[in-house]
Amino acid sequence: MSRMARNWIKLRELALRDLTVDDGFWNQRLRLVTQEMIPYQLDSLMDRVPGAPPSRCVRNLRIAAGLEEGTFEGFVFQDTDLAKWLEAVAYSLTRTPDPALEKTADELIELVCQAQRADGYLNSYFSTLYPGHQFCNLKEGHELYTAGHFIEAAVAYFEATGKEKLLVAMCRLADLICQVFQTPEYEDAVPGHEEIELALMRLYELTRRERYRAMAYDFINRRGTTDYLSRESTLPRFIDVWHDRNPYLPEYGQAQAPVREQTAVEGHAVRALYLLSGMADAAGSFEDESLLEACERLYENVTQRRMYVTGGVGSSGTLERFTADFDLPNDTAYAESCASVALAMFSKRMARVTGEARYMDTAELALYNTVLAGVALDGKSFFYVNPLEVTPSFLKPATDKAHVAPRRQKWFGCACCPPNIARTIASVGGYVLFTGDRELRLNLFIGGTYKARLGETPVTVAVRSELPWKGRVRLELKARERMEGRLLIRIPDYAERPRFTLNGQELKPETEKGYAVLKLSGRSAKVRFDFDMPARLLYADPRVTADAGKAAVKKGPLVYCLEETDNGPGLAGLRIDPEGRLRERFKPELFGGSVTVEAKGQRIVWDGGLYSAKPPGRTAATLRFVPYCFWGNREPGEMAVWVRLKC
Amino acid sequence: MSRMARNWIKLRELALRDLTVDDGFWNQRLRLVTQEMIPYQLDSLMDRVPGAPPSRCVRNLRIAAGLEEGTFEGFVFQDTDLAKWLEAVAYSLTRTPDPALEKTADELIELVCQAQRADGYLNSYFSTLYPGHQFCNLKEGHELYTAGHFIEAAVAYFEATGKEKLLVAMCRLADLICQVFQTPEYEDAVPGHEEIELALMRLYELTRRERYRAMAYDFINRRGTTDYLSRESTLPRFIDVWHDRNPYLPEYGQAQAPVREQTAVEGHAVRALYLLSGMADAAGSFEDESLLEACERLYENVTQRRMYVTGGVGSSGTLERFTADFDLPNDTAYAESCASVALAMFSKRMARVTGEARYMDTAELALYNTVLAGVALDGKSFFYVNPLEVTPSFLKPATDKAHVAPRRQKWFGCACCPPNIARTIASVGGYVLFTGDRELRLNLFIGGTYKARLGETPVTVAVRSELPWKGRVRLELKARERMEGRLLIRIPDYAERPRFTLNGQELKPETEKGYAVLKLSGRSAKVRFDFDMPARLLYADPRVTADAGKAAVKKGPLVYCLEETDNGPGLAGLRIDPEGRLRERFKPELFGGSVTVEAKGQRIVWDGGLYSAKPPGRTAATLRFVPYCFWGNREPGEMAVWVRLKC
Repeated sequence: MSRMARNWIKLRELALRDLTVDDGFWNQRLRLVTQEMIPYQLDSLMDRVPGAPPSRCVRNLRIAAGLEEGTFEGFVFQDTDLAKWLEAVAYSLTRTPDPALEKTADELIELVCQAQRADGYLNSYFSTLYPGHQFCNLKEGHELYTAGHFIEAAVAYFEATGKEKLLVAMCRLADLICQVFQTPEYEDAVPGHEEIELALMRLYELTRRERYRAMAYDFINRRGTTDYLSRESTLPRFIDVWHDRNPYLPEYGQAQAPVREQTAVEGHAVRALYLLSGMADAAGSFEDESLLEACERLYENVTQRRMYVTGGVGSSGTLERFTADFDLPNDTAYAESCASVALAMFSKRMARVTGEARYMDTAELALYNTVLAGVALDGKSFFYVNPLEVTPSFLKPATDKAHVAPRRQKWFGCACCPPNIARTIASVGGYVLFTGDRELRLNLFIGGTYKARLGETPVTVAVRSELPWKGRVRLELKARERMEGRLLIRIPDYAERPRFTLNGQELKPETEKGYAVLKLSGRSAKVRFDFDMPARLLYADPRVTADAGKAAVKKGPLVYCLEETDNGPGLAGLRIDPEGRLRERFKPELFGGSVTVEAKGQRIVWDGGLYSAKPPGRTAATLRFVPYCFWGNREPGEMAVWVRLKC
Repeated sequence: MSRMARNWIKLRELALRDLTVDDGFWNQRLRLVTQEMIPYQLDSLMDRVPGAPPSRCVRNLRIAAGLEEGTFEGFVFQDTDLAKWLEAVAYSLTRTPDPALEKTADELIELVCQAQRADGYLNSYFSTLYPGHQFCNLKEGHELYTAGHFIEAAVAYFEATGKEKLLVAMCRLADLICQVFQTPEYEDAVPGHEEIELALMRLYELTRRERYRAMAYDFINRRGTTDYLSRESTLPRFIDVWHDRNPYLPEYGQAQAPVREQTAVEGHAVRALYLLSGMADAAGSFEDESLLEACERLYENVTQRRMYVTGGVGSSGTLERFTADFDLPNDTAYAESCASVALAMFSKRMARVTGEARYMDTAELALYNTVLAGVALDGKSFFYVNPLEVTPSFLKPATDKAHVAPRRQKWFGCACCPPNIARTIASVGGYVLFTGDRELRLNLFIGGTYKARLGETPVTVAVRSELPWKGRVRLELKARERMEGRLLIRIPDYAERPRFTLNGQELKPETEKGYAVLKLSGRSAKVRFDFDMPARLLYADPRVTADAGKAAVKKGPLVYCLEETDNGPGLAGLRIDPEGRLRERFKPELFGGSVTVEAKGQRIVWDGGLYSAKPPGRTAATLRFVPYCFWGNREPGEMAVWVRLKC
């Protein structure tokens, strides 16, 4: 490993107990998590939602704990739905204390501990169906992935409540993993589904136990160096838990090459981006230049060649995977909600490790578009798959478009996305501010009160923001002592004419890696950050064949789309005038308050048969766009992000 | 069944021994069948092609005949590859006698007869793997489909050579089918994969044995009236030969409703169109108005809502099936070669039964484009799937585009297409001329000598044609006696300014159902039929979202495409000027002689990242089109039928 002279920066996220989001846009969504998603998902986990596929998640753990008779049902990773739910609960409790909810969470944690084996092993699938067997099928068994989610939940729950029970239990699980995976039998073993790497890094950050960080690093460094995942099925310990007739594809599990040699993000999108999240953590922690270079290279690949304009990633429904550079079909897009969660996680880490603001453009894009689109405005139904173009009549079962749903669903047999969306929204405040060496960095413009430190000085940062509708941000910093240090404010990629004032004085700050740099002194400071962010058209590299000849509307962080509700059927027959003005209107009654965009254009008039030599006619038309994150909340109908250009 | 007052017309195709195709365009392809495809496919059937997947077809029959030890290998319908090959051989022998080939065919027919059971049953899969079992899994067992292909081969071989051996054997098979499927146990049984219907109709036309026609009619009339195919797996006789975890979809096998009540062509495309071919035959034979109405309705559905501009059908790779109206994606198109063979067969029958020329537009479209594209110019490699847009780098295994191949393949594990293409090209002369009551109908403009009858008078029709490059057709009719009757000449949908002369005299003939009607008298006649067929742009109904904002180039029956070889990479970055002139050039050295088309347009110049707010630049460009049927015969690269419009 080469360690070059990079100027390593040490930035930290705020703990969620140190912040309170209070934001015109996000309050609604946070309330949704607390009031709708958490109770609803608890009902799901306990099989209490009529008409939804049963989760069996809690029941499985009760069977594993010996509290109930029965047989495990669900996926090998069914436990993770509870883990992600507990994580979301932890974040929710920091903002909205709720003794009853906390009691329920404590009881479920008690159940988890009862389901845990004496040696620390925890997994209700293997404990009940294959007692005595463990880590026998890393390729598809998901034990390390499941462990990772429980570890994340334990860290979050401890940070939120100060309660140690789950943390202690999960340290025992982590200790078991660290022990087993350093034995000769497992010397080149890696998880089939990554997540444990970032979880162990997170556990290390809290506990400072070196073994956790070392194990995460080993998992990363081992990956792709041997054929463990391909060879595993020939080992005596192997149990075929998820039979697949097809041979294992190393690239599916990011094992096509050692991670430092990988040039493109391949395979299962969630796995790839969880791995990259762990890699970014480890690169920063170990100051590993070649590992960070791999992260940078793979970040460039995914965001410059394999990402939808909405921050969706992983375009193929077959294997939920990345495919090829520029292969980004809109109507068959997979773009799993969880993959955009993972993209936001990776991008945030890259911003933290490198100090570059541009990574936050991607995190913000994924959060405000694909992640938010994953959940309905009532918090009760979800998209697993996030297409950029929908013609409902085309979406038939048992066809190539069978994986695309025209409406959000109540729950899923494989229910990874709903609790993942919940924990992500609940922890969005964690993206807002980083602290560093005598500096504060404002990344996302989300209102609230943030308690940080500038050097040794505690500082309270009150943020007010009119995003995503208006580029108007107000900061008020207060400290008991004199502040000495820098305030860095991200200038987002969509900001036009950024303008700053400090304590009423206009200034033209210097920029550093995409942040405007303001010097702080005194015991308080008032900062205004204004910028224009008019709706504008985006075009795609014409190698993205699906988008060639089209444009998308974006305003600030929000991508817009056409819906049939506003435009009538036949969205493919609409043409936008690229010279025309985009007219914005705030509609308070729509989606709980939203800016819509109107554009001038044409509608094709067709009077031929299926094919005709007669050029189609055109009439003038107004095209009406709404934010993509809100699509599918009215009558079902067509939707399209990309619209054809007037010709 | 309602029998309305339709004026039923009785038209007949010429037997292939009564015609000799001699045509500038088709001679090359017919030579290919005789000199390349038939010998090559024989080698394939006998497992003699190095590097190609073994067929095992002949070996399986030898095992069934007790001539060889071993175990059946291949698909349940593996026998059909030989049946289709024999049919192609029959047609080839009528044009190019070849005693050695005929001897080989006779030997293989001998083998088929030895593999046949004493009671007439023939199927090497069931005979060897499940001896004593028969018709136990119609849903996927393909016995009736296989029987149909052998019956077609038997009729063709008898008509070509006068040899009865296979015909007699296959009449015994047909007799067995007629007996079994009229017993109470099978009273509502229907084939899972249709083909037997059209084969029995064909056998009836030759033998005039009423039971064959009645059985075909019964299979058609039963279809969709009961849940036989869904229920079959619960019957004691059921053997699960092709395990599918998913429940059977009635629409997959066109059993969603009785055929007369079906409103859209559904399910597996080849099955659907073979069924419709048999339905058209039966409707004409029984003068069954409601059945013909169903054929007309379903023909309209497929050609006006579910057909690619190339005559490809069945857009979904999942289940090789029809999906929904206007769902015609270009880059994931399945459009199996066999489905276009079946579309040509159905359309020809509709022209024959109704006397309407327009059906021949579809038959010609399918033949000249998708069927011909299915085979390489050297006759040695084949497309199973016929996309309308290819970006080779997007076509990765284990993704949503895995079914699309950027190059033709030598052979296939499921090798239905190569021999189907061979038999179709070899019998293309059968599409040219119909005879009726004192009339001759010229459908396709393919040069050759056609021996027909006008009333009782034998007439020889010599056709010269410059299609598909030029709308210039010359007919010379000769008879020993005075001809009395009509000559009908199809005016194709692409013909502009059609002009006729009869014996040197210009005339403006009346038209009847799309045919120009010329009166014949005297012992000879010379007819000239000239028309313009310049290359022109076609547009698609904008409900075909994949083609909206684009145009395709078509000249006469040929659809054109862009290839990377002529246009460089990045075909999606090209824009055609719809006002520009399309310049045609005949290139004798290209593809054995071909007209190419040049158009004016633009190329997008892109200097942004993946997405950019800066409108892309443009430079003038010349777009170079070649016939779609010839694509993929040079270096591998991008291909696109639909090109974006200048804007």
